[in-house]
Amino acid sequence: MRIDPWGTDVFDYARLRDDFGIEPFEPLEKEIKDPHYLMRRGIVFGQRGYKIIVDAMNNNSEFVVLTGMMPSGRMHIGHKMVVDQIIWYQERGAEIRIPIADFESYATRHVDLKEAENIAIQEYVVNYLALGLKPKKCRIYFQSKNNRMKDFAFLLAKKINLSEMRAIYGFTGETNISHFWSPIIQVSDILHPQLDGPKPTVVPVGVDQDPHIRLTRDVASRYKDIKLIPPASTYHRFMTGLTGQKMSSSDPQTAIFLTDNEEEVRHKIWDAKTGGRETTEKQRELGGVPEECMIYEMYLYHLVEDDERLRKIYEECIGGSILCGDCKDRAFNLIKEFLNKHKKRRERAKGKVEDYLEYY
Amino acid sequence: MRIDPWGTDVFDYARLRDDFGIEPFEPLEKEIKDPHYLMRRGIVFGQRGYKIIVDAMNNNSEFVVLTGMMPSGRMHIGHKMVVDQIIWYQERGAEIRIPIADFESYATRHVDLKEAENIAIQEYVVNYLALGLKPKKCRIYFQSKNNRMKDFAFLLAKKINLSEMRAIYGFTGETNISHFWSPIIQVSDILHPQLDGPKPTVVPVGVDQDPHIRLTRDVASRYKDIKLIPPASTYHRFMTGLTGQKMSSSDPQTAIFLTDNEEEVRHKIWDAKTGGRETTEKQRELGGVPEECMIYEMYLYHLVEDDERLRKIYEECIGGSILCGDCKDRAFNLIKEFLNKHKKRRERAKGKVEDYLEYY
Repeated sequence: MRIDPWGTDVFDYARLRDDFGIEPFEPLEKEIKDPHYLMRRGIVFGQRGYKIIVDAMNNNSEFVVLTGMMPSGRMHIGHKMVVDQIIWYQERGAEIRIPIADFESYATRHVDLKEAENIAIQEYVVNYLALGLKPKKCRIYFQSKNNRMKDFAFLLAKKINLSEMRAIYGFTGETNISHFWSPIIQVSDILHPQLDGPKPTVVPVGVDQDPHIRLTRDVASRYKDIKLIPPASTYHRFMTGLTGQKMSSSDPQTAIFLTDNEEEVRHKIWDAKTGGRETTEKQRELGGVPEECMIYEMYLYHLVEDDERLRKIYEECIGGSILCGDCKDRAFNLIKEFLNKHKKRRERAKGKVEDYLEYY
Repeated sequence: MRIDPWGTDVFDYARLRDDFGIEPFEPLEKEIKDPHYLMRRGIVFGQRGYKIIVDAMNNNSEFVVLTGMMPSGRMHIGHKMVVDQIIWYQERGAEIRIPIADFESYATRHVDLKEAENIAIQEYVVNYLALGLKPKKCRIYFQSKNNRMKDFAFLLAKKINLSEMRAIYGFTGETNISHFWSPIIQVSDILHPQLDGPKPTVVPVGVDQDPHIRLTRDVASRYKDIKLIPPASTYHRFMTGLTGQKMSSSDPQTAIFLTDNEEEVRHKIWDAKTGGRETTEKQRELGGVPEECMIYEMYLYHLVEDDERLRKIYEECIGGSILCGDCKDRAFNLIKEFLNKHKKRRERAKGKVEDYLEYY
């Protein structure tokens, strides 16, 4: 049965995908030249309307990739996955737009706009740049400062009624009105690059964001004053936290943060949940269970880009030829190497932030 | 019984005022030096929190008067009443702010923003200037262009929840979300002049606007990040239409428009509903009924500023010494004189619009 080295949680996501009416990613992946390893490994597992993006890439024609940045908490390795994808798209000619969701963090998380600005720049923008985002055809903006987007949100709001908002977001009488505005701002974030003409657009998201995507696609087709192509989306699985719980900025033990020091990383890796057996003997005999191992997830999502190498790690584990301690050491060394490089890149990135910011 | 020359509809408004919990205007009127004739005649019949404005006027201290301009349809004599009031306040040192409700006309009346801009300037701003508004301490702005106000609206929206909006405005599931935004924008219109420090503010409105006023006063007291003085309001009666129906831009026979020509005015006055009796004989004997006369309302609201002169007209009518035909001729001549002057003033005003516009 254990034959798929990319297989953690695959079944659940497939069911989720089908329940939501999301299309599988795999058939389109085959049309992509040199797909990203997150695509090859089924971590990007679903899509809506993605064919237009494949065509745009294959024809070298214009397209937009948009991903929101929520300025609250600290950036961890789970967030990196989206950045890796947008950099991959940038290398394939995409125009990149990154709204910083300061309005949303204000409405839903009570982060004030000034604080959101600091967090966004120090904690997120600098990390995105250090991960390799280039300034060419890339614009990062604060929602609160993009008047064109905000004004368009007001126009789009005419196409969405209260019932729909309640059905999608479960709003109640207690919900404050700024909360109503956040999803509309997101719809406008995604659609406003088309104010200058229709353009294929893709938004790589987690499946929890699918209600926004569906709303945006619907609104795009309802709005007739200008032609808007309904945006495509891709859906990726989320990394599990190192402890086996959900990975979250607010629970530091669950994640490697991009600014963690060596000692912090060592402890987190050491404490991470693995798929090891109760005893060394059993593990030598039965092998480990990589599908249940948070260290294996680190390899799968981030540490090992080469599929052959990953397959070897998988086979060593299930064959019982490596034990968790050695495997953790290896992971620790890979992370340490990455974070050391990243630290230097962060320093270089700090002076370049303004090359990326729009309306600033 | 018929002893009050200012008395059309007074009873109904008094009841409405009490039902709404609006305070009577009269007691404060006595503290105002040289009150406006609309105040003296009880046309301004109610207020909330107006004492701070009386004090500001009497102490020559800072205060703001705000009135919205809805850019739809044509400006008629009924609209003039608010302009007369704000000019009176301006002469008493007020800072004047006039938001042009282009967002609202878009959300509720489907007027697009560009069209709203043309209507606002050609039809409203030019008329306001011709009526005597001065550029000093006066700023007219488009809601859609005032980013400071719009951003503040977003912050204020956190203080208002869905239940409250439904209770005040009767919104249903069918209501589109831009509709939710309009009242919040109005709240911000009224409060944002206080972003630079608390200032007494008054909004002269019709009683139909009281829900907005109450909401704004509540929000001002809920918002703690900066100190906001809850705005005062005054309430005025509306002129009845010339036909005896509601005065409305969309029914031209009901109103004298500020750009009507002599022939149009003559016809409208000639067709206007009066308080005349069935026969000349009866009118000589019983007198007319100015309380039911649309021509008398024209005198009361607009044509005769001098109270003594108005009292004479009233007495001539109830005494039967003037008949409706002669009275209409007199009214026609007064309107003609006003409109001729106004036309010249409009021409002069056209070149000055930009002195008044903010964010333009």
